[in-house]
Order: sequence, then C-alpha cells, then structure tokens
Amino acid sequence: MKYDEIVPVRYVDEKMLILDQTKLPGEEVYIEMETKEDVWDATFKLRVRGAPAIGVAAAWGLYISIREIEAATAAEFADKVREIADYLNSSRPTAVNLSWALKRMVKTMEDYLDGCEGVLHEEGLAPEALELEEERKIHWTKEVLKAEARRIHEEDIEACKAMGEYGLSLLKDGMGILTHCNAGTIATAKYGTCLAPLHLGHERGYNFKVFADETRPLLQGARLTSWELNRAGIDVTLICDNMASIVMKNGWIDAVVVGCDRMAANGDGANKIGTSGVAILAKEYGIPFYMFVPTSTIDLNTATGDDIVIEQRNGEEIYKMWYEKEMAPSGVKTYNPAFDVTDHKYITAVVTEKGVVYPPYDVNLPKLFEK
Amino acid sequence: MKYDEIVPVRYVDEKMLILDQTKLPGEEVYIEMETKEDVWDATFKLRVRGAPAIGVAAAWGLYISIREIEAATAAEFADKVREIADYLNSSRPTAVNLSWALKRMVKTMEDYLDGCEGVLHEEGLAPEALELEEERKIHWTKEVLKAEARRIHEEDIEACKAMGEYGLSLLKDGMGILTHCNAGTIATAKYGTCLAPLHLGHERGYNFKVFADETRPLLQGARLTSWELNRAGIDVTLICDNMASIVMKNGWIDAVVVGCDRMAANGDGANKIGTSGVAILAKEYGIPFYMFVPTSTIDLNTATGDDIVIEQRNGEEIYKMWYEKEMAPSGVKTYNPAFDVTDHKYITAVVTEKGVVYPPYDVNLPKLFEK
Repeated sequence: MKYDEIVPVRYVDEKMLILDQTKLPGEEVYIEMETKEDVWDATFKLRVRGAPAIGVAAAWGLYISIREIEAATAAEFADKVREIADYLNSSRPTAVNLSWALKRMVKTMEDYLDGCEGVLHEEGLAPEALELEEERKIHWTKEVLKAEARRIHEEDIEACKAMGEYGLSLLKDGMGILTHCNAGTIATAKYGTCLAPLHLGHERGYNFKVFADETRPLLQGARLTSWELNRAGIDVTLICDNMASIVMKNGWIDAVVVGCDRMAANGDGANKIGTSGVAILAKEYGIPFYMFVPTSTIDLNTATGDDIVIEQRNGEEIYKMWYEKEMAPSGVKTYNPAFDVTDHKYITAVVTEKGVVYPPYDVNLPKLFEK
Repeated sequence: MKYDEIVPVRYVDEKMLILDQTKLPGEEVYIEMETKEDVWDATFKLRVRGAPAIGVAAAWGLYISIREIEAATAAEFADKVREIADYLNSSRPTAVNLSWALKRMVKTMEDYLDGCEGVLHEEGLAPEALELEEERKIHWTKEVLKAEARRIHEEDIEACKAMGEYGLSLLKDGMGILTHCNAGTIATAKYGTCLAPLHLGHERGYNFKVFADETRPLLQGARLTSWELNRAGIDVTLICDNMASIVMKNGWIDAVVVGCDRMAANGDGANKIGTSGVAILAKEYGIPFYMFVPTSTIDLNTATGDDIVIEQRNGEEIYKMWYEKEMAPSGVKTYNPAFDVTDHKYITAVVTEKGVVYPPYDVNLPKLFEK
C-alpha cells in the first residue's frame, strides 16, 4: 500500500498507523499505534470509524498489543491475548465488526494452538526442550495472528473492490452521482462500499461529477466524503441535505449511491438518517438508487425494516455541537434518530461483493447465501 | 399590541422598537430605532427580516426619521422625506417589500400635499400667515405619514390573520404539522403567513404538535421558528432537514405548511431551499402540502417556475459560517441556492388572504385578481 493513498489503517515497516479522522478535514495526520491503550483510545474517540475500518484496526491493534508479550507457556500467552482482546472490545461495545474481528483473531490463535497440542504434550521432552518448544509456539502464534490481521485487512479490500466492480457495471463515465454520509475508503480497509465504484472508476480515468450531501447532524458528508473525494482527485460538490431535490431537478444526477448499516430479508435497508428521503426523491425524479451492502450486513433473520430498532441520539448534536453558540432555544425539544429505513420499493438494486441483486429482494437476497 | 406578544416591529408610546433577530435564539432584545441610521442598520444587518416585516419596519422607520425634521416649506420637507426614503431603500436593494412600503409612504405624502396645493398658492396671504400655513402643512404631513405607517402595519396583520383563518379551516386540533424555514410572526407584522393558523389555533386552545426543519444552511428553522413557537407556548420539535422523511413515515405529520417567496401563474412556488423536497416527501406519504402565499407574492406575469431566477449564495455558508472551525476542506466546491421551486403538482392548496385556492392553479389563481 503506497503512502500517497488514503486509507484509515496502515501496517507498514512493522508500524501500525491510523488516520486520525477527528482531525479531518483540516489536517491529515497518521498516528502510530504503539500500545493497546493507543488502539482502545483511537477506537473510542472515533479516530477510526466505519464498521469495516474498525474491524481492520482491531485486528492489527490486537497484533501490535501482543507482539512484545512474553509468557512462560503458550497457554499463558493465549490467556493474555484473550484478555487484551476483551479490553479492546470494550472500546465500542456496539460495533459489530470490532467484536467480529477480535473473535476471529482469538479463534485463529486457538485453532493454531489446538493443532500444536500433540507436540506440546509429547512425553519424554527434556525441560529445556519443552521451554524452547513453548517459546517457539508463542513466536509462531504471534506470526499466525499477524497473518490473520493481514488477511482480515486484505479480505476487506477485496470485498470492497468486488463491490466497486459490480457497482461500476451500473455506472458510466461522466455521470453525475449523489451520495449521502460516508461509506468510502476511510470507512473500510480501502475503496469503501458505495464510493468504491467512484474510486475504481477514477483509477481508470472516468470523470464522475459527485454531489455529497453534508449529512446532518454529524456532517460526515462535509467532513469526510468531500475531503476523501477531493483528496483522491474526484470532482465533488458539497451541498446541504435539503438541496438533493434541486440538483436532481437540475438534471445533474444520474445515479444515487449509498451504504447500508443493516438490511432486512425483504430488502428494506437501514442507513444514515436522511437516506430514505433521498431514495424517495430519486424515485420521483426517475433516478436509479443503489444501496451498497456487504453480505455480512444482510440479516435474513430480520424480516422487514420495521423490525430494525433505530438508535436515538442526543438532540444537542442538532443545535449545539460544532457551533460557536447554541442555534436553537436551550433545551428545545428535538428528535434525533441516527438512521432511517429505506423501503425496498425505492431501491433499484443492491450491490454486494458477490454481485448485483435486483427485486424481488425477498426472493433474490437469500440466494446470495445458498451454495 | 401587548408587550408579551412577540412581534418584530412595535410602535408604542411614540417609540419604534425592533426585535433584534440576530440575537435569537439566545436573547430576546428589543432595540429602539431613534435615527434613520438605526433603521438602515437594522435592515442591512437583518435584525429585522422577512419580507412583510421589512416593509412594516421601513414604513415606521421613515416616519421616525422625519418626525423631527424642520423645513421652511412643505415642498422642502417633502424633498427631505424623499431623500430619506431613498437612503432607507438602499439598505436592502433587492427586498421588494422595502421599496414597496417606502414608495407607498412617499406617494401618500405627495397625494396629501397635492390636495393642499390650492391652499398653498392662494394669493393675498400675508407672509406670516403663509409661514404658519407651511408649518401646519408640514405638521399634518407628518401625521399623514404616521397614519400611513400604522395602516401598512395593520393591513399586514389583517392579511396574516385572514391567511391564518383560511389555513385553520384546513387543519384540526391535535394535528402534527411540519414546517420549513420561518414564515412566522417575526417575519411579518404579526401571526406570520404559514405559521398564522398555528398561532390563531393556539389562541383558541388547539394543541398542534409542530415539527420544525432546522433549514440549512442559515438555520431559520432552528434559530427562529423553534424559538418563536416555543416562546408562544406551541409544542415544537426541532429536527434536521433530512429527518422530514422519517417523521412522516412515523405517522406524526398530518399536514405540511410552508411560505412562499414568489408564485408563478401556474402555481409553481419558489420558497426556501429544501421546500420542494419536503413537498415530494409529503406527496409520497399522502400528506397534504399547503403553501401560504399573500396575493402580492403571486406573479401572473411569470408563466412557470422555470422562469424564476434562483439566487446563488456563497458556499462558505455551508461549511464555515456558524462553526468553530471549517467543516469541509477549505475552498471545497459547493452549490448553495437560496431557494428552490416546488412544482404545482405537489401543492395540495394555496392559502391566500383572499381564500384557499385549489388546482388547477392556472385557472384558479387569476380569479383572485378579478373583482
């Protein structure tokens, strides 16, 4: 991975680096993670954010936290790894990818050690040889964990790239594209989900004209998407969320691309607040609306969007956060849902790393999981 | 008018007071206008805003600027009045109501003086008597101007009240109402346009549940509407613009009420940016969408919304204004239209001070101007 690329997590020259996203868009700073506390803090403080990026950071973060650890036996070492994994997992308890990546790392370690079991308990080994053997096993367990972190990292790049290729098959050079929130490179290992086709297309010389909704109240579109695309050299225009209608009416938008936080079995998709409104406008103006959904985000056990619980956040994010002074009467009543559910009837196609899925979603989404 | 009422302009005890809207929502401060410079400044700096309120402020502002003026003759006095009217008119050259109110004041003065013409030029009047006569005419011209300012003020209250009554006929006690921007009491002489039915209904004990879009980028919904309704004791919930879809989907909205900056002959209405998106959502969710339009805002010479030129504003309003630091890459490309046009097909009814107009608008709007 080259240094001129924007990625949220890097492992180069035995160093783990994190793009501090809290400093964006003003400063582009990579900070080195040297201890487990660094990793915990970076996750807790949202220096790294976006589900897949959090998973990648957790995997590398666990590795850099255990690579210097010493232990008398491999079993003792394994206990320490599990303890650190639990610690890292506590940084953002509700982030599914965090616990998923840490569990996968621990499981890989355990499978490896289970495979060594026979060697460990071989009888007749001299105490010195036994000690040497434990040392070797700890050494190789560390290597196994490092390889697994790299695998998690690379698998996500591959998944994003695949999603990007499938997405690109739906777009054409020169198109105007509207996006909401940030499901880009800096939310994943690389490329992003819904921004992947834009990055891939750009690498091939396509000229997209992208419109980024600022995405109130947390402004991920302004702070992150417009920064990311600008930085990548992709033509991007920042608009307020309420300008999506006029840019569509102006004829400037040929497709809408958005990410997804959770998709129900019928194709209803929860994503950043405001996504459902954009979808309705797109339908009204006859513009295709594509939702980019890694298969890990499709939950066939959730029947419809009505079964998805929407996180409610503090209303001060609306009128106090970011501002020099309060922009509404202090303590004003607010409603601040973090997500909304886009009804499947507004979604033209669902783009996954396994291919493009068209309606009827209740029939076609389950096919992704057959085989 | 009582002091506990919120109005943007007051004339009480020979004092002209302006609610300094730049201090809202943090402070409710009325400042006295003592000179023409005070009035110019208050208009220029948007301490008073909203087309009808600007007109009322200009009328009273002209009066307080000329009430102390001395002149040798009524003609000289009239010149001074015209000069001050021109000066005040330069504070916001594009505000139609500003020049409309000032022209009406000057015209009233001229008509009055024309009516006195005979007296002025009567021959054989002794110089002392002539001087006394000029003095009297100046005195009465001031009274005429004062009466005209009051008339402009009261006519706007009556128009808003009429719009409110017609609007109220479309609503029911207990309804959930969504509004965008601020077309309220503080944008007019009193009551507002689209908020008039809410204020009138509240006076009668109706309980509306109002949702106010914050209205990016200038936040009129957060700063002004949520303040105004809160202050009036009306139940108001502040949301981000991109949450209009979810509150409608939740079943919380029974009607949408918005103002209008200019309506074309076919019923297409230009209003604050984002209005057209709200209208499309309302249609999709089956919610009536009412646009409140004083007949002075209907321009039958403009055929359709396509003929309305949309003001483009500085993009720094999107990512720099209000904030502690820039929320997008410095100098990012932006698109920042101040208004959008809501197609007439999304407007359930147009509420004017002369009655409620239903489609087909190209047939029914012109009837308002027949006699």
